[in-house]
Amino acid sequence: MPSSTSHDTITFAGLLAPILTPFGADGTVDHAAFTALAKALLANGCTGLAPFGTTSEATSLGIAERKAGLEALVDAGIDPAMLMPGTGTCAVADTLDLCAHAHGLGVRACLLLPPFYYKNVSDAGLEAYFAQVLEQLPGGFAAYLYHIPQMSHVGLSVELVARLAERFPSEVRGVKDSSGDWDNTSALIAQCPHLEIFSGAELSLLDNLKAGGAGCISATANLNPTGIRAIIDAHRAGDAAGAASAQETASTIRRIVQKQPVIPLLKGMLSQARHQPHLAAVRAPLVALDPAVVTAMADELRAHGVQQVS
Amino acid sequence: MPSSTSHDTITFAGLLAPILTPFGADGTVDHAAFTALAKALLANGCTGLAPFGTTSEATSLGIAERKAGLEALVDAGIDPAMLMPGTGTCAVADTLDLCAHAHGLGVRACLLLPPFYYKNVSDAGLEAYFAQVLEQLPGGFAAYLYHIPQMSHVGLSVELVARLAERFPSEVRGVKDSSGDWDNTSALIAQCPHLEIFSGAELSLLDNLKAGGAGCISATANLNPTGIRAIIDAHRAGDAAGAASAQETASTIRRIVQKQPVIPLLKGMLSQARHQPHLAAVRAPLVALDPAVVTAMADELRAHGVQQVS
Repeated sequence: MPSSTSHDTITFAGLLAPILTPFGADGTVDHAAFTALAKALLANGCTGLAPFGTTSEATSLGIAERKAGLEALVDAGIDPAMLMPGTGTCAVADTLDLCAHAHGLGVRACLLLPPFYYKNVSDAGLEAYFAQVLEQLPGGFAAYLYHIPQMSHVGLSVELVARLAERFPSEVRGVKDSSGDWDNTSALIAQCPHLEIFSGAELSLLDNLKAGGAGCISATANLNPTGIRAIIDAHRAGDAAGAASAQETASTIRRIVQKQPVIPLLKGMLSQARHQPHLAAVRAPLVALDPAVVTAMADELRAHGVQQVS
Repeated sequence: MPSSTSHDTITFAGLLAPILTPFGADGTVDHAAFTALAKALLANGCTGLAPFGTTSEATSLGIAERKAGLEALVDAGIDPAMLMPGTGTCAVADTLDLCAHAHGLGVRACLLLPPFYYKNVSDAGLEAYFAQVLEQLPGGFAAYLYHIPQMSHVGLSVELVARLAERFPSEVRGVKDSSGDWDNTSALIAQCPHLEIFSGAELSLLDNLKAGGAGCISATANLNPTGIRAIIDAHRAGDAAGAASAQETASTIRRIVQKQPVIPLLKGMLSQARHQPHLAAVRAPLVALDPAVVTAMADELRAHGVQQVS
């Protein structure tokens, strides 16, 4: 349990959900549904939460909304040590503002996007950006770097990660690699052995664990935390056959989910599970799924033993 | 002169500079250099300013820095009616916050980026995003839509622009088309005759004017406003030969500038012109140019009759 306040013990190894951000009928963040989902995920297999990631529609939330949402989680009794909020923006100032706010709530680490407006930027430019952020983090506050090139279109090379980890050994604790490129993830694990390397989806979770990685931070943890957690538990117990079987089942479920746009699907399923139509809402530029499609997907997933956590 | 307060008369037709944002030796925005450059640009051919665009490194500025910078321009005596600040972010809430702030300063229009984090989004999703912003703009405040697909990786189709202009005839006043694709710009002019369509660079300025477009909003207006303005003046005076000649000269200069990364080059030249080394600084993830390269480029441009405005 990551409950110590000593920096050296900060670890998030396990399964984190980039928790969905539910919206109320008026379009604002529904803090009641948000905190209820957070508690349900932690009660059903997640070892931590990564609010305000891509799946959380973080960039579609205003700075003030991100702060208020994090406060709601802590106010609801979630241990801040279990939270790795996304604090990345395109600007050092806003990113540091979010980091300081999180630190003030007792949160000990964040997930950091690169600045994602300018494209074809150099590693030197990205290193300078992260260095400015890392040098100004609150004392004891740690960062996990967020590599999601298919969305940010600004990737973090293995060399850049290694250099930042070497320059900022107290601040840089790990990476979330959402590239879906196992060669990249395994290179990170091999070349940055002191970092916690998370896969961005459970498809490579067992490979990640076998290679010495830290686990995964996956959108689908909003839906199937128990099934994904089973991979980790079996692996840690030395049950190779059980781990392989759990991986196969979880991967089957993930591939079904991926047949639709993942965020609208997960929110649609959450909405139906809680019988609250407004919870299906996504923020523009994302678009909600047809409820009939959600129902059909939910039926298919239920046939595989998965029920939406809510 | 866009000095009336009647909405119907809002026009920015002419030459706007997406003004550079100079930084002080301490890395913060240098308001003195910023306002001095603004005045120099307006005194040397610009008919308006578009602060906080791509060339301004807007996304590398925090929300508070963007507000303070706009206040500095107005406090320095720049007519707010000549300002078209970029207010786009990825979130409706932050964008509206910036628009309301600008409106409070007497500014009458903004340049709106699409939300640029999520990729491969639908026109329906983008329409919903812009609709939410446009519906909540302060009364009388207008928007120009910003199409810069090579940077945002989220483009605005001609069809989307036309639909938004039809739905929000009082709010949508025009487009800055930075695609560099003349077919797209000419399609916008043809299909949205009530909008002010700006080219994002002067290479197509005369074509833009001949087709009925509104002019250009170009990075190079920070360097060569007089030369670019000459195209507009000659065209408006019916001097076809003079306009063509001015276009040829301006295009030659633009092509020289484009041999280097434009923002670092322009800031390097500004720095040398003002003999203040710190003004060459760009914010990460951009990287400053070698001063020797800047000097060589300045020499080459001087040979073409261009001196940095400062």
